[in-house]
Amino acid sequence: MTMPPLPTEFALIARHFRPLAGPGALGLGDDAAVLTVPAGRELVIAADALVAGVHFLPDDPPDLVARKLLRTNLSDLAAMGAAPLGYLVTVSVPKDTGDAWFAGFAAGLAADQAAFGLTLLGGDTTSTPGPVSLSLTILGTVAPGTALRRNGARPGDGVWVSGTIGDGALGLLSATRRLDDPTGALLDRYRLPRPRLALGLALHGIATAAMDVSDGLVQDLGHICRASALGAEIEAGLVPLSEAARAAGPALLETCLTGGDDYELLLAVPQAHEAALREAARATGIAVTRIGIFREGEPRVTLRALDGSLHGDGRRDHGGWSHFA
Amino acid sequence: MTMPPLPTEFALIARHFRPLAGPGALGLGDDAAVLTVPAGRELVIAADALVAGVHFLPDDPPDLVARKLLRTNLSDLAAMGAAPLGYLVTVSVPKDTGDAWFAGFAAGLAADQAAFGLTLLGGDTTSTPGPVSLSLTILGTVAPGTALRRNGARPGDGVWVSGTIGDGALGLLSATRRLDDPTGALLDRYRLPRPRLALGLALHGIATAAMDVSDGLVQDLGHICRASALGAEIEAGLVPLSEAARAAGPALLETCLTGGDDYELLLAVPQAHEAALREAARATGIAVTRIGIFREGEPRVTLRALDGSLHGDGRRDHGGWSHFA
Repeated sequence: MTMPPLPTEFALIARHFRPLAGPGALGLGDDAAVLTVPAGRELVIAADALVAGVHFLPDDPPDLVARKLLRTNLSDLAAMGAAPLGYLVTVSVPKDTGDAWFAGFAAGLAADQAAFGLTLLGGDTTSTPGPVSLSLTILGTVAPGTALRRNGARPGDGVWVSGTIGDGALGLLSATRRLDDPTGALLDRYRLPRPRLALGLALHGIATAAMDVSDGLVQDLGHICRASALGAEIEAGLVPLSEAARAAGPALLETCLTGGDDYELLLAVPQAHEAALREAARATGIAVTRIGIFREGEPRVTLRALDGSLHGDGRRDHGGWSHFA
Repeated sequence: MTMPPLPTEFALIARHFRPLAGPGALGLGDDAAVLTVPAGRELVIAADALVAGVHFLPDDPPDLVARKLLRTNLSDLAAMGAAPLGYLVTVSVPKDTGDAWFAGFAAGLAADQAAFGLTLLGGDTTSTPGPVSLSLTILGTVAPGTALRRNGARPGDGVWVSGTIGDGALGLLSATRRLDDPTGALLDRYRLPRPRLALGLALHGIATAAMDVSDGLVQDLGHICRASALGAEIEAGLVPLSEAARAAGPALLETCLTGGDDYELLLAVPQAHEAALREAARATGIAVTRIGIFREGEPRVTLRALDGSLHGDGRRDHGGWSHFA
């Protein structure tokens, strides 16, 4: 007698996900992965969910969806100064989702696994009567005691950001045809975050606090302020914008400062470490820009607008992206 | 100036999830958790997703949904012989989900954290235009080399199961009012799996293969057969049924054998280890029953029905639960 065919769910896993499995995944054939965290390293672990129609568009190509899912999580590792180790992914899709979607999704994971140096450890594939719902748990490691935190900023530290701010938020406007994006650069930044892993790995001993900007610069800076019990002042005119964002015009500056999906690093760096920060930026090829300063005071963000006026973050329109506001 | 109110998403996390956070979670206030896996232990890690309308009913109480989510994952640890360490959870819910739902969900997690000895490490809360979609990643540990696998069964090993089989599948019939369930025992088993952690921890050196029964006994036994390159024969008359399942009548026996949601352990145990298995069962208070034998041959399951007839698992109606069949 011949072996009966495997149910489709297991065939899908074997065809598309098993090739992504690495050491410890046991070929995705057991109830769990088993791995040894490298000796003398702490485990860093985070999870993010992406939902079609909320975090990506239902007709976004599945390879880009997969890469965004992996990269938003890699950005959390970057913010902690951690090196990637592996990931687990759960995928809930409508029953009529075709093999091509899974093939594209797996191809996106494969490309970024190779680019960022990690492998699949496990996960789950289920059906859903709703939109595609994805969840990814990422594992990384740090040398003991070196993880970057949000709570270490000190008065006088500069507020720094990597890369450029606002492209993701403008890219969403482009994707939904509310903004002209002739080069496609903004859409590309919305769909494909650039986790700043190399920079994050270089920041131990340089940054006193770090996080990634995912919910909007002003709101996320507020998190560092609360964790560090400090105020922060930033100047809109200092916030680094891409050429495409500048071309979109000053009316969209507020969108850039409060929109989400940047996946840049937001840092607190003492003046004495600025030379080391610039050297780390040069070595990793990732630009950094000083946009303000942390000060003693209430844990809030003050923004100096282009016209010199000051705005507090108590204003709703500076609040950033919240799922339940 | 007073501190501006936090956006609702972060208030939800602070109110309901932060009290669940344990060592390494950093109060859920950073981009990731940082923890040290205990020295000399391997990390065991798995992820499962649950979707309303697929894995639980949309009006199931949120505390029971949370406990089912945690327990289905704990069952994977049990199947690996691992001790619980912690978990991350992502929660995607409709925008109009009220505070009471989150309070109930967190209360369920709190109850089972205490019962099973683990704490929350991190996660994500997002909105969805679809049904509630949950994903949980569980972490456990084992002594190096002691994880139970699916691939170690040998010819002549007995096929064993813990507890009773079929209550979960019949409980779903009860929940959807297709089966009378006067005591509510079946519904309770559907909503609240019993992960067999204590038994799993006692099986190193006793079981040659193990997994948990989540997709139906026959289908899951097929996974051990494929992983171990063996056939298996089981007798329907030996499969342990609860009093409630027996009361449901013999017409539902096939549902018991092929339905999902058992979360019992399925084991391969050599005859020489049967006394040790029975002692482990006695010590943990978890019943075990021998239902068949592994044999050389094609990796397939043969079922001897109550009337003595033989059935192969190539039959679709013995295939168990697959999300995409």
